[in-house]
Amino acid sequence: MMNFDFHKLFLVNPCDFDDECYTRAMHAQKILDNSSIFSSFDDAVKNLDYIVATSSLESQNDKRHLRNATMLEDFANKIFQVKGKVGLVFGREDYGLYNKEIAKCDLMVKIPTSESYLSLNLSHAVSLVLYSLYAKGEFIPKDRRTIGRIEKRKMYEFFSNLLEEINYPEHKKENTKIMFKRVMGRAMPSKWEYHTLMGVFGKAIEKIRRQK
Amino acid sequence: MMNFDFHKLFLVNPCDFDDECYTRAMHAQKILDNSSIFSSFDDAVKNLDYIVATSSLESQNDKRHLRNATMLEDFANKIFQVKGKVGLVFGREDYGLYNKEIAKCDLMVKIPTSESYLSLNLSHAVSLVLYSLYAKGEFIPKDRRTIGRIEKRKMYEFFSNLLEEINYPEHKKENTKIMFKRVMGRAMPSKWEYHTLMGVFGKAIEKIRRQK
Repeated sequence: MMNFDFHKLFLVNPCDFDDECYTRAMHAQKILDNSSIFSSFDDAVKNLDYIVATSSLESQNDKRHLRNATMLEDFANKIFQVKGKVGLVFGREDYGLYNKEIAKCDLMVKIPTSESYLSLNLSHAVSLVLYSLYAKGEFIPKDRRTIGRIEKRKMYEFFSNLLEEINYPEHKKENTKIMFKRVMGRAMPSKWEYHTLMGVFGKAIEKIRRQK
Repeated sequence: MMNFDFHKLFLVNPCDFDDECYTRAMHAQKILDNSSIFSSFDDAVKNLDYIVATSSLESQNDKRHLRNATMLEDFANKIFQVKGKVGLVFGREDYGLYNKEIAKCDLMVKIPTSESYLSLNLSHAVSLVLYSLYAKGEFIPKDRRTIGRIEKRKMYEFFSNLLEEINYPEHKKENTKIMFKRVMGRAMPSKWEYHTLMGVFGKAIEKIRRQK
């Protein structure tokens, strides 16, 4: 939970919090300490605006609406539109959620898993759902400062100069420049990668020129 | 692994497989039984075409190319273009991957996590990466033939030779080679792009040598 900025843990009839429990929580012990404990499912969800059941088991039969599911990815794309308190409901390690619990939820989300082993471990199911929400949320930091059009133009120009200096066959030049553009377009270099690359190209060009 | 149709487990110097190990594997015990055991990281990856390090810790500093990362989602969108054997490398539960191991990988993938608790439990990290690949898997067209490990090694070697020929500062060499690996790791060149790039590098090296 803490890995993905979720902090409100509701537990229904949990076991006691023993030493092992705290040890496993590692640096997230305060989530345990701040958790809310309920004696029934109904109590736990009564103040929530939108209740979401989770499962990797889906009804094979379209007629049984109960377990007709929304795929996790689709859910993650749409849930941010919901205003209010959303509750993600996870079942027991062994049995998951009972049908009568799923029936009380607004939506059932399916985590896609292989036919050869459908059931997920509880902690993995939680991780996957929280990660999917976290990864879609807008609070993901932009990971890298990539180069802009001016740097890009300069990089292509250097590459073009390099082709010039090595007497690259005229009829292949255009296509090779496009290749370089495509490769770099996919690589999306950061500013620092750009400067490092330009250093190498620059030195190569200089070296060839000086020795002419 | 079995939840997401992954079957080949490579282990480097693992502990013994005791009863607990089999109990926890539940219905996936055959993955343990069919796992391959290696005594070094180099041995484990030597027959792989594309090696991917995973981490939730990223370099805060763009200048250190080593941990310049690709986000998990972007990786999941692109990796299906790679032809050949892809290895996903996960580190130790406590320390993750060492820098020298990350340096040997073609790409580093970052699993986005909260600033307030960056490190993921190993089994959760594995789940998230395999789920992301599984969830993307069926929709991505497999249209490009990318280069394998032999071509890649050759490309890195040529780049290294180029640095040699241009008297690139010794203390910067290692970092610049890793930068090149990361840029190319993200770009995932096709065979034709590879041959074209090698043509350019080859000619540049030849040109400088001949004029010495």
